[in-house]
Amino acid sequence: MSKLSKYNKNLDYSYALGIFPSIEAIKNSPNSCLRLLKSNNINGEGFELLEELCKNNNIRTEYAPNILDRISPKENTFAAMVIKKQQLELNNNTNHIVLYNVMDSGNLGTIMRTMLGFKIQDLAIIKPATDVFDPRTIRASMGALFSLRVTEFNSLEEYIKKYENRNIFLFMLDGSENINDIKKHQDNKPYTLIFGNEGSGLNPEFKKYGIPVRIDHSNKIDSLNLSIAAGIGMYKFNEIMGE
Amino acid sequence: MSKLSKYNKNLDYSYALGIFPSIEAIKNSPNSCLRLLKSNNINGEGFELLEELCKNNNIRTEYAPNILDRISPKENTFAAMVIKKQQLELNNNTNHIVLYNVMDSGNLGTIMRTMLGFKIQDLAIIKPATDVFDPRTIRASMGALFSLRVTEFNSLEEYIKKYENRNIFLFMLDGSENINDIKKHQDNKPYTLIFGNEGSGLNPEFKKYGIPVRIDHSNKIDSLNLSIAAGIGMYKFNEIMGE
Repeated sequence: MSKLSKYNKNLDYSYALGIFPSIEAIKNSPNSCLRLLKSNNINGEGFELLEELCKNNNIRTEYAPNILDRISPKENTFAAMVIKKQQLELNNNTNHIVLYNVMDSGNLGTIMRTMLGFKIQDLAIIKPATDVFDPRTIRASMGALFSLRVTEFNSLEEYIKKYENRNIFLFMLDGSENINDIKKHQDNKPYTLIFGNEGSGLNPEFKKYGIPVRIDHSNKIDSLNLSIAAGIGMYKFNEIMGE
Repeated sequence: MSKLSKYNKNLDYSYALGIFPSIEAIKNSPNSCLRLLKSNNINGEGFELLEELCKNNNIRTEYAPNILDRISPKENTFAAMVIKKQQLELNNNTNHIVLYNVMDSGNLGTIMRTMLGFKIQDLAIIKPATDVFDPRTIRASMGALFSLRVTEFNSLEEYIKKYENRNIFLFMLDGSENINDIKKHQDNKPYTLIFGNEGSGLNPEFKKYGIPVRIDHSNKIDSLNLSIAAGIGMYKFNEIMGE
């Protein structure tokens, strides 16, 4: 890494823009932190913590106001962590979220943050999809990305073949099971919740992979917003399945 | 209304930008529709429906590409409905959502759309708050605004005094009641769900107005995103209380 570029998806690094996301990166994924960029006029409690964390983890910090201006879409970004992009293998013993062709970085970020809230740490993204390492996604996740294991797959089949022996639920507008009626499975297998694209949802042929679930809503809307549906799904499964 | 201005909150009119939001406006709130602005090169199924709806409702349409360019933040806005801003009295016999100092137009729009999905048509907004008539809010709501009754209040007290004889639930991080344990009330009173500001939530002294409810989440996040919390709240009360 010689000269830092404005982010694009072909780079092997990205940026956690801002003091809080940089702190989340170093706290939860210190090995992915390459160096901290900071502006000349930066101070405050959060920043002192960030400097201390860098020192304790041997992460180089440098004054780089010009680079910050170049890489940040907003003014007044006082700090940014340069992070190494890396996919982490999912754990087959824990619950998973699968997002099929998610296209909105705000939705993806919000879902990652909600996962962390409901203790789901494994995320599979089926491509094509928005870039999970885009600084906008990282910002929308409020740094939650750094606490998750995330892997991208080229097809849903690839995910299904790799992670076997799980209870799989597919969220579909015409799902045969009402989410209100889902009961706790007694087999203690981990579960996977699969959510589809913002506009087109999931392909009907995917029903063969698991139990199609619906969240009933009025006919005044075409569908719930993706991040809302995922939030309700995670909340409900957390309630049903318990800790 | 002589010369149409780029939107600002002091105007007594706003814009539903785009074909789909304009259709929602005219279908659900024809009396608030003042006139339709359209570009020169517009066609397609949605547009034919829009023209027909304007004709049936005696709403004037005019070619106004320059105005569209001026009022729209995005390129390629093919149509916009000019709408009259009006507050509609809430119905005291139905369920309400109250948003206290909501500041993000995306959150407000998403919550309005989710309300429509869960058949809650009455919204109170406690100021200061983001502008419910801002074209960005209307767009984020996907036109749901036009199916709701919305009133702004200067304080929560003002709302509480005006709408009596209701079951009131306040969503707070330290709420004494776990949402999982809420039971159907037997008194058949309508309910009000109150959600606080994105950063600071609700003032602890508001607890005197109702039952403080919490949605448990891990300590890895400070709080759920406001629109996610509201989505879970509406889903759960819809499930508990039934139709």
